Amino acid sequence: MKSTILTIGDEILIGQILDTNSRYISQALNRLGIVVCERTSIGDSREQILHSLDRALAESDVVIITGGLGPTKDDITKHTLCQYFGSELVYNHEVGEFVRTLLARRGIAFNELNRSQAMVPKCCTVLHNAHGTAPGMWFERDNKVVVSLPGVPFEMEHLMEDSVLPKLKERFTLKAIVHRTMITSGIAESILAETIADWEQSLPDVLHLAYLPAPNIVRLRLSAYEVDGQSVSEMIDEEFKKLYSIIPQAIVGFEGATVEQLVHNALIDRGATLSIAESCTGGAIAAKFTAMAGASVYLQAGVVSYSNSAKSDILGVNSDDIARYGAVSESVAIQMAEGVKRVGKSDYAISTTGIAGPTGGSVEKPVGTVWIGIATPERTFAVLKNCGTDRGQIVARATAYAIKLLYDNL
Amino acid sequence: MKSTILTIGDEILIGQILDTNSRYISQALNRLGIVVCERTSIGDSREQILHSLDRALAESDVVIITGGLGPTKDDITKHTLCQYFGSELVYNHEVGEFVRTLLARRGIAFNELNRSQAMVPKCCTVLHNAHGTAPGMWFERDNKVVVSLPGVPFEMEHLMEDSVLPKLKERFTLKAIVHRTMITSGIAESILAETIADWEQSLPDVLHLAYLPAPNIVRLRLSAYEVDGQSVSEMIDEEFKKLYSIIPQAIVGFEGATVEQLVHNALIDRGATLSIAESCTGGAIAAKFTAMAGASVYLQAGVVSYSNSAKSDILGVNSDDIARYGAVSESVAIQMAEGVKRVGKSDYAISTTGIAGPTGGSVEKPVGTVWIGIATPERTFAVLKNCGTDRGQIVARATAYAIKLLYDNL
Repeated sequence: MKSTILTIGDEILIGQILDTNSRYISQALNRLGIVVCERTSIGDSREQILHSLDRALAESDVVIITGGLGPTKDDITKHTLCQYFGSELVYNHEVGEFVRTLLARRGIAFNELNRSQAMVPKCCTVLHNAHGTAPGMWFERDNKVVVSLPGVPFEMEHLMEDSVLPKLKERFTLKAIVHRTMITSGIAESILAETIADWEQSLPDVLHLAYLPAPNIVRLRLSAYEVDGQSVSEMIDEEFKKLYSIIPQAIVGFEGATVEQLVHNALIDRGATLSIAESCTGGAIAAKFTAMAGASVYLQAGVVSYSNSAKSDILGVNSDDIARYGAVSESVAIQMAEGVKRVGKSDYAISTTGIAGPTGGSVEKPVGTVWIGIATPERTFAVLKNCGTDRGQIVARATAYAIKLLYDNL
Repeated sequence: MKSTILTIGDEILIGQILDTNSRYISQALNRLGIVVCERTSIGDSREQILHSLDRALAESDVVIITGGLGPTKDDITKHTLCQYFGSELVYNHEVGEFVRTLLARRGIAFNELNRSQAMVPKCCTVLHNAHGTAPGMWFERDNKVVVSLPGVPFEMEHLMEDSVLPKLKERFTLKAIVHRTMITSGIAESILAETIADWEQSLPDVLHLAYLPAPNIVRLRLSAYEVDGQSVSEMIDEEFKKLYSIIPQAIVGFEGATVEQLVHNALIDRGATLSIAESCTGGAIAAKFTAMAGASVYLQAGVVSYSNSAKSDILGVNSDDIARYGAVSESVAIQMAEGVKRVGKSDYAISTTGIAGPTGGSVEKPVGTVWIGIATPERTFAVLKNCGTDRGQIVARATAYAIKLLYDNL
């Protein structure tokens, strides 16, 4: 079963927004067993929509469209779909009343534009949008399915989970798609590939191997499409066991697990707690942890101490040491980690102090210089890392290194 | 001048990674005056690459490709491009020596796979990749340009800035693309559209209006493609002036400016300082500010106080009040804001305390309940907001509300 994802909106083509909908839908369809063979983004153009639909339906059984369903003139997806399926727009009383109620709750009057959102092509099945004013639409033709969803991510996600995925599951007989990922750290991609070449060579034909490099890690993914999920999962278990025996020291995690998820799980398992003091990463490390439900169980305190006075007053860093060694120094990183561990009354602590740029660098301490401190119940230490030259990259790398360093010392 | 962006990689189609490259390239091409008419993501498949290239070259003058240039077997873009252009792979000594040096600096031996990265199609112009092992490639045929870049965002971005954009500028005579955005807040999209309908109706034909709704804001974008940039910018100035006279109270910013950028600029302009105490937003507010270069000028302290003891010990929140009113309460939000303002020695402070879920809600305080505190030089107060039902959404909304609330009180 093949699918195409079509996201519509000039704001995507000019780069004004990041298209996260395509990723969400890709993951959802893969979980269901539907292969995504192409994703396309086009503008709010009638010709482009008609042309892309033709193309998508020639290649795929399922087409999921997002965007262009707003109440304003720039949104033309609904009218264009109505034309494509040779239908006409009719007023849907149920949708109209729901939108009226939704707006009333927010103190907004129902106007002509809202009324137009309740006009839907006669030939489609309306999918109830509990979180917005634009309903989803389900079309069928020649045994193929076209679904149109609003572009607001939150609304789209609820429609996918509540309506589209259950209906697709009911409508088609689907086999499984299996993706399993092993995370390695500390080996360059080319060396890794050389080291595991024999293993790669002997993989069963049904399994496809992919290498996914990122700062300080390489992910190895095994994928199998439209298979029996149970037996392929067992096959992958076997292959991962063999891989583990080849590179045991390099493997730091499995599945979609990020290093922060591994730390998160380990802290919860052990009933241990964590505090974080950040200077150059500015809260990015805390944000990684707090994005995961359950972080409040172990995360005691996070402090973003940009200023020297915050380092001294909140964390108790000796101001003489800041003057003597500089804010970006081993001594300050260690005192920050110990300080936040103390005020947060936690078992572990992370600290960062560095120069994220673009200004503030010097010859001895160029932009990208970062000291990362780790405090454990036994000891506190700091490691110096050069994290590159670009502000965003420096924050991302320092964050990744710091979390990995804690993981290695748990 | 039209372009197509083609991102290659199974990891995109299964949703394992978010395609941020397309957005970056879209923005860069728009700045240069090249219209992006389509973005397509396909898998690491020879047939798909050949087919998509044919299609892209039928519609566009410029095709930018990313991905599939790694040293491992799953990456096939280079071989496929070589075949498409009827060329052969030859060893490029310069690339080979550069890769050898780059790896040596990181303590990695140059192996057969690295050597293969220095093999490039004879017919292409090699684009030097100063940050990685895969060079960029520039092909020309029938007056059209195809550029292939590595998928690692950092490497791609440097290649775009250092090589691709300057070469495109030199190669083609380009007109301007103008996008200007006005940010409104506090008016629902349908009411806004009704209110400005006459203005919209009277816009010059060259200007295209788009509505972009997001939590608590609607962006209004005026776009013009392949025009004289100077005169169109003046035209947009005029139209925005008219718009301002219609909805003066609703306009909170211009351009790509986010509300945090407006706060950032205002604080720097006034020499004022800010501290942030976050519970349910877990560092997301601090991260918004610290992502902007220059935040260290005004950001004194950020504290993520998940635990009650952190609220008391670091911020001085009265523990009796936490027991009496609960951690999610007006009193605690106010004390957190005052506390972080005091320890950070700042002029302004933001605080958040709420229930991000999925657990921890009750009948009186359901998941999504958030108290947002604001401290200014004159006063401190807190506002109650219900931020929805989904953890990510709650954090995003609470963050947006809190920054907007500070903006309104600067």
